Amino acid sequence: MGLLITPKLLDMLKQMIGDESKSRRLMSLLKKRGFLQPAFEAYGGVAGLYDYGPLGGRLRRKVMQKWLDHWISLGNIVEIDSPTITPEEVLKASGHIGAFNDYASECNSCNSIFRSDHLLEGFHPNPDSLEGDSLDKELGVHKITCPTCKKIDWLPAKPLNLMFSTTIGPSNIGRKAYMRPETAQGMFLQFPSIYRHFRKKLPFGAVQMGKGYRNEISPRQGMIRLREFNMAELEYFIDPLMKIEHDLGQWDSFKLKLIPDPEGNNSEEVLLTVSDAVEMGIIRHQTVGWFMIKTFELMAELGINSELIRFRQHEGDEMAHYATDCWDLEIFGGYGWIECVGIAYRGCYDLEAHQKSSNSNELKAWREFEEHITVEKNICSPIQSKIGPIFKDKCKIITDYLELLEEIPKEFPLKILNDGIEYIIEEDMVEIKEMKITQRGEWFTPHVIEPAFGIDRIIWHILEHSHKEIPKKDDENYTLLGLKTDVAPVDFTVYPLFEKDGMEILSKKLVEKIMSMKGINANYDGSKSIGRRYARGDEVGVPFAITVDHQSLEDNTITLRERDTQTQKRMSIEDLLEFVSEYK
Amino acid sequence: MGLLITPKLLDMLKQMIGDESKSRRLMSLLKKRGFLQPAFEAYGGVAGLYDYGPLGGRLRRKVMQKWLDHWISLGNIVEIDSPTITPEEVLKASGHIGAFNDYASECNSCNSIFRSDHLLEGFHPNPDSLEGDSLDKELGVHKITCPTCKKIDWLPAKPLNLMFSTTIGPSNIGRKAYMRPETAQGMFLQFPSIYRHFRKKLPFGAVQMGKGYRNEISPRQGMIRLREFNMAELEYFIDPLMKIEHDLGQWDSFKLKLIPDPEGNNSEEVLLTVSDAVEMGIIRHQTVGWFMIKTFELMAELGINSELIRFRQHEGDEMAHYATDCWDLEIFGGYGWIECVGIAYRGCYDLEAHQKSSNSNELKAWREFEEHITVEKNICSPIQSKIGPIFKDKCKIITDYLELLEEIPKEFPLKILNDGIEYIIEEDMVEIKEMKITQRGEWFTPHVIEPAFGIDRIIWHILEHSHKEIPKKDDENYTLLGLKTDVAPVDFTVYPLFEKDGMEILSKKLVEKIMSMKGINANYDGSKSIGRRYARGDEVGVPFAITVDHQSLEDNTITLRERDTQTQKRMSIEDLLEFVSEYK
Repeated sequence: MGLLITPKLLDMLKQMIGDESKSRRLMSLLKKRGFLQPAFEAYGGVAGLYDYGPLGGRLRRKVMQKWLDHWISLGNIVEIDSPTITPEEVLKASGHIGAFNDYASECNSCNSIFRSDHLLEGFHPNPDSLEGDSLDKELGVHKITCPTCKKIDWLPAKPLNLMFSTTIGPSNIGRKAYMRPETAQGMFLQFPSIYRHFRKKLPFGAVQMGKGYRNEISPRQGMIRLREFNMAELEYFIDPLMKIEHDLGQWDSFKLKLIPDPEGNNSEEVLLTVSDAVEMGIIRHQTVGWFMIKTFELMAELGINSELIRFRQHEGDEMAHYATDCWDLEIFGGYGWIECVGIAYRGCYDLEAHQKSSNSNELKAWREFEEHITVEKNICSPIQSKIGPIFKDKCKIITDYLELLEEIPKEFPLKILNDGIEYIIEEDMVEIKEMKITQRGEWFTPHVIEPAFGIDRIIWHILEHSHKEIPKKDDENYTLLGLKTDVAPVDFTVYPLFEKDGMEILSKKLVEKIMSMKGINANYDGSKSIGRRYARGDEVGVPFAITVDHQSLEDNTITLRERDTQTQKRMSIEDLLEFVSEYK
Repeated sequence: MGLLITPKLLDMLKQMIGDESKSRRLMSLLKKRGFLQPAFEAYGGVAGLYDYGPLGGRLRRKVMQKWLDHWISLGNIVEIDSPTITPEEVLKASGHIGAFNDYASECNSCNSIFRSDHLLEGFHPNPDSLEGDSLDKELGVHKITCPTCKKIDWLPAKPLNLMFSTTIGPSNIGRKAYMRPETAQGMFLQFPSIYRHFRKKLPFGAVQMGKGYRNEISPRQGMIRLREFNMAELEYFIDPLMKIEHDLGQWDSFKLKLIPDPEGNNSEEVLLTVSDAVEMGIIRHQTVGWFMIKTFELMAELGINSELIRFRQHEGDEMAHYATDCWDLEIFGGYGWIECVGIAYRGCYDLEAHQKSSNSNELKAWREFEEHITVEKNICSPIQSKIGPIFKDKCKIITDYLELLEEIPKEFPLKILNDGIEYIIEEDMVEIKEMKITQRGEWFTPHVIEPAFGIDRIIWHILEHSHKEIPKKDDENYTLLGLKTDVAPVDFTVYPLFEKDGMEILSKKLVEKIMSMKGINANYDGSKSIGRRYARGDEVGVPFAITVDHQSLEDNTITLRERDTQTQKRMSIEDLLEFVSEYK
């Protein structure tokens, strides 16, 4: 068992994808045809910022919509939206301030700044594993010169916080804030609202799609390492004591490429069904396995070649401090294997961190005991004659809350938040007494499983995997984007054979008719030879071409050409419109 | 003619919307039920930042999708996406640095900062029309005290730039940047790509939806004045010499409320059809009128009460320096008349500003003359023997470009950008000669018409206009959100009459079945009395309730209840599913 990625296999994979010059040709095509381009190019561009153009904008929208539909259709997942501007306290609690740092070395001579690990590439097998002193030492040992001024005069490497910082309110007295590095924190903080929405019954999830920010020192690799990126994250809240059964057996017909336990004895790639991997304990939680296979399914539906997907388990020291199991979904392309999704079992880390920092008592869930327990203990009990007149029908909520506290509160007044309403409890409203109490259940912090998606990286690989260059007799290749109909920016192009005799009028009418159908996009293309125009459509992945010729004017038929098979079929306009309306 | 907004009429309008306490009850409902809430509440909240919760998130998504479909279906409009982080040069060129300022007064005693005009509210009829000195004078005249420390010790009012600033790259050597105040600039800079996409044929448009940022000093009014907001803008590029005919007559059956020319003699509200308003010259451009009516149509489809929509023309000094006609679509709600959309004829201001600042030669369009013109003039002509070997089949492009320059270039080497490729022209490649040349056409800067939408403000008014409180016998009102089916977050709720005997199983199966239909959302609700549950559904605007009872188990029928009419109808599950699949 095991399918090691040998150099030979890697070569084979590279042939499937092509060489670097193929990636360059793709990028140039994408730029020319309005998919992607460096942003602010008229002003010299900004590294790590990209524009989606007229075709790319629609591709992005369709990929995001498909992502959303995939999760929402599960029934217990909702979409929320929170601000990108995030106050410092939140990111302190989440651990992003202090962590999330790369080291940078500044040249003392010309003040250029570089990522220290980038300077050491080719000189050290794993430079991004090094920290401060070791980086300085290695820079010295290998006599690394400054790429700008060619001198060797490095200041000590410093960790750089990679968040974009800003200020809410006037800069001199405002509140320190950052552009969010991920969308997750906004979802943790909305836990109380999501919990209420689902009638306080776990498990459930929330998703958020939007911009994330990472102020890279020197972004490289096109769409892979961006300073502003499109993210999509899912937080799935579970009760760790509740057994969740997923029907993993339905996916037993195919195997995932896994690289488990990279530190241990089984660091070779293995091919396993998801149920076997869970059963063998390689995937450490059933729900993690379920998200892995659901994610794999989505990638294939989006047009990622499933042969070029693998899951790599994090090493112990690579795993975020809160995660107990973490898998990267990596996709192979022109840049090698690239992490495009991370699926992490985060435990109760996030909600607990925010509980501690914010003193919120709403980041917990209630677990009913199967059998009620009677215990004798000191409790903080409200004096009903005092709270009755104030809180009326809410006394029960307050009594339950106070009597179930694990410890007697140390400070008063005490604030209780319930269903978004705040109750203030003064010291004289309560008494401490020893009581036999029946515990019906307990408050606990839910655990979280988080699949986090880098949408731009996925889009890049969709484009790479659909990019085909077919050798022709003459020198040039015939270029085709084999985009799936679910994500293709244009669904139909209508071509009049010639722009005369009414063919152009009929063609435009067809475009209008198709455009009136919700969610379907059609273009008109009239100029140059029909062969050139088909090529133009294939190049941007239009799945179907409709040609209007002289015969169309006589008998109301057109020719429908399919991109992938290049076959053509004559049909009546009526049949065509039925085909279009059932498309998707 | 004319329908002046008299105090009496205003009272009537207020009754339609309700008083302030109704707005407060709505906000509390929206918070409790997961539509909207102040963001980062566990950390004390941040003024001007809001979360969309489980129901609000879906409402927002549906409003944005409907907005997008409305414009994309026109056929010559594409969606693009550009970064929110924007380098300073871009915003200098656009006029956002230097402008876009409010005045702020700082208290010399306690250093609190306030918007100067807010301090003067109630003391001056129109404080936001005042600038620096006049603000200081008025603060003095009215002896305005500091709201924080109650002293009178104001420093001179200073204009504050209301953009969130940040730095791209390491802060000491990075590039100054701002979070975009609008999405428009990203679209202007993508003009070359959009122009190519549309085969260089005007008119066409681009849309962008996404976050916009405005670092308000003291945000107020809930969703109306946010620091981070959802925007949607459309830039429509036209040739000002090309006559565009819109069929405005199709909307002759109804009249728009207009407040034209607020400086002139006709500052009263008038009711006019859009064709009359264009014909009379009140709306100064036909395409502006066309966007006004298309926008009005969209607002009505989203569920805005069309009686509570009016268009207010900008006064001369209120109009942005580039705009030659500008109309605000205002919606009436609990905060009075609020600008929710701005429709501006921006002329060639934006593209020209970026041409000047960036030296880009790609922000122009080509206009073919009807008859070619022969002129004698000094031109910069490439020497074919020199450029031939270098530029090969691109020589024609370069020759055309150079010979058509209005002036002889002053500096070499000269960079020419065409279709995203850069050509470098050295001085020795050209000669200056007097020639008779035939001009086939000319380059010009397209004009722009921009409808810009504040999505959060629109969502707020959709909620206000659909919020109904129906008096009941007892004290409490019955609350209902009459959301249109196109935007309602939940389409169907399925209720088992009791959670037993299999009613709960059948109900859950129905939910699953409905959820499997793309774009349709169903919930299950099992607890409490059926009346309480109907009320819970009505309160969040679920259009249809499906009830499963004992009879359902016997004969496969259910009851379908319509929210707005509160009528119930028994039907077979088969008919129900057909109804659901045809829904929308």
